[in-house]
Amino acid sequence: MKPMRIHAPHEKTDGMKNFIFQNPTRLVFGKGQIEKLSELLPQDVKLMITLGSGSVTRNGVYDQVKESLRGRNFIEFWGIEPNPRVETLRKAIQTGKENRIDYLLAVGGGSVLDGTKLIAAGMATEEDAWDIVLKGVAEKQIPFASVMTVPATGSEMNGGAVITREETREKYSFGGDYPQFSILDPEVTYTLSEHQIACGLADAYTHVLEQYLTTTGQSRIMDRWAEGLLLSLIEIAPGIKANPRDYDLMADYMLAATLALNDFIRMGITQDWATHQIGHELTALHGTTHGHSLAIVMPATLRVLKEQKKAKLLQYGERVFGIAGGTDEEKADKAIEMTEAFYRSLGLTTRLSDEGIGEKTIHTIARRFNQRGVAFGENRNVTGDVAEEILKSAI
Amino acid sequence: MKPMRIHAPHEKTDGMKNFIFQNPTRLVFGKGQIEKLSELLPQDVKLMITLGSGSVTRNGVYDQVKESLRGRNFIEFWGIEPNPRVETLRKAIQTGKENRIDYLLAVGGGSVLDGTKLIAAGMATEEDAWDIVLKGVAEKQIPFASVMTVPATGSEMNGGAVITREETREKYSFGGDYPQFSILDPEVTYTLSEHQIACGLADAYTHVLEQYLTTTGQSRIMDRWAEGLLLSLIEIAPGIKANPRDYDLMADYMLAATLALNDFIRMGITQDWATHQIGHELTALHGTTHGHSLAIVMPATLRVLKEQKKAKLLQYGERVFGIAGGTDEEKADKAIEMTEAFYRSLGLTTRLSDEGIGEKTIHTIARRFNQRGVAFGENRNVTGDVAEEILKSAI
Repeated sequence: MKPMRIHAPHEKTDGMKNFIFQNPTRLVFGKGQIEKLSELLPQDVKLMITLGSGSVTRNGVYDQVKESLRGRNFIEFWGIEPNPRVETLRKAIQTGKENRIDYLLAVGGGSVLDGTKLIAAGMATEEDAWDIVLKGVAEKQIPFASVMTVPATGSEMNGGAVITREETREKYSFGGDYPQFSILDPEVTYTLSEHQIACGLADAYTHVLEQYLTTTGQSRIMDRWAEGLLLSLIEIAPGIKANPRDYDLMADYMLAATLALNDFIRMGITQDWATHQIGHELTALHGTTHGHSLAIVMPATLRVLKEQKKAKLLQYGERVFGIAGGTDEEKADKAIEMTEAFYRSLGLTTRLSDEGIGEKTIHTIARRFNQRGVAFGENRNVTGDVAEEILKSAI
Repeated sequence: MKPMRIHAPHEKTDGMKNFIFQNPTRLVFGKGQIEKLSELLPQDVKLMITLGSGSVTRNGVYDQVKESLRGRNFIEFWGIEPNPRVETLRKAIQTGKENRIDYLLAVGGGSVLDGTKLIAAGMATEEDAWDIVLKGVAEKQIPFASVMTVPATGSEMNGGAVITREETREKYSFGGDYPQFSILDPEVTYTLSEHQIACGLADAYTHVLEQYLTTTGQSRIMDRWAEGLLLSLIEIAPGIKANPRDYDLMADYMLAATLALNDFIRMGITQDWATHQIGHELTALHGTTHGHSLAIVMPATLRVLKEQKKAKLLQYGERVFGIAGGTDEEKADKAIEMTEAFYRSLGLTTRLSDEGIGEKTIHTIARRFNQRGVAFGENRNVTGDVAEEILKSAI
């Protein structure tokens, strides 16, 4: 492991970095907005709607979409699974090409939309879909949009997607175009399960931490905005648990999930993302729901990288949890404990042992990282060995 | 005046409203970014650069722009004044049309860019430019971009512009397209005068207040983000006064000014803007710098509308200024006092009498509002009579 730098709280580090920001997605937010679908879609497109396994038929979204598209021709591709698999998406690409489709509409959660992003890329090239994922960037995509039903991944307003290859149990992300538009009606979240909501809140919360809990002193504004999202998520979580049909709470939850990962809070700052990389391995190997995997890994990452992240942990503890007394060491520990407690308050377990995951998986993940020669985190020091340490701390 | 509703602090009002958000501007931020200009501009455009009265020749920006555009053909239109006048902009439209210009690049501050937005609209139609302003919306514009040199108006990442008609001393805003891109290099702010910086900080701060100090309980996140910008502006202001060549402070200032008025903090919430409408009148009649006019009017608006805004004033006082003790009345008064003190700390006066403006102007403004039959503010109750009350409170 690289030697770690320790910063005093609020100490200036390297300041704001140069950045280019552009997020062209049209966000169409609120009650009844699905009826705008037909006017949002360009005329005369050859449309394929992409869907999951059927929850949109049970919550009424599918009917709303059909109603809005009355009089238009389109085909449907069903069966994009949670943690969308390249094996399934290759079939969708083939279907799309056979039907000369030139516009995709994802109706569902982050997995359906992530899968759709790869379909959009695969349809614009002769390359194999997995090669696009391995390259990490889609150079060309046909246009796509979404009706988002599960607040969690932020995929509705960003250019990223995470794809699983079932055959080898690998899960990687790639970047490309942003959705042309995304419709977010908080009312469609009323039928989500308690576990889906818990994982969605954990996902949004962790997205913010990945961009926030790095170094101090890069941008006051980005810090405040990240803290604003964290405070909001903490504030709404108990109310949502008590009543997942409270419109205003679900609206704030849905907006928070979008703003947590649409580039708005990462202007000119360094980012971490080690927790996500380790979490993806747990999902690939054990099928752990994405948000849940993050709830397990994030507290452990913070324990292992506490010295490196201490200055920001102190700021986080003070501003988000109101931690005041004690030594810096105690305050940093407290901030980590309260982070884990937040995930548990959502109803998620935060330990590998709770999920029956043990040493064997830990060694597999460490070996995979080492074989790939990768190192993650804001200091690029989360190698296979550090990932092992993190996962051991999560037992 | 309509009877005013009073809300207890944090009381729920009408919740989040439906909204559509889309901001396609590419923000190119940081040291040395002006050298990216040529690659950001499309090839083969017939370009006209629009400029003010010469400050960009003194601060080196003009040379950087010329250097980056070496090998390209373009024409220049100089002389767009502060509070850009339709009389000047008509000439620019004529020049643009004569030269078959199809792309505009504003190099300067918010006034140059606002003027350029009207040139872009005027070039896409046969309508008179002032008619476009009066309509409030530009239906068509040729594309435009900016190299922004004065952090203040947020024009670099929004679709609005404010135009003055010298002949009648009127100043109104209209909306339309967003810049294709805006280059923001904080280093170009090093040569701004103390007064320009003070007015820029006041402008950004007031933009946030116009979107924030309305009702409570509409969106936790928008509230937190607005408060984050206010806290950041309060935090950086003394440092900037001490050293306006501190890169990180000027970077946060520049980013704050953009994020204060680029739609990011007004998703699903009501807005005020009465202070701006009254301030525009002071500028039209007396030439008061825009940011300065806001520093005079905003505290007075808050005094007069204190009951209506009380719940939000208490939240603002607590979260932004840390006001804790006293009755609600005392705490609301304190929040208003601290707002006025902030403007004064920038080096701006906050009273009409400081500027030699008296009853005559107040009556003129009240009469104009009444003649137009307008009413501003989140409750549409700031009529001519209320504007008069506000201005009297600002004496």
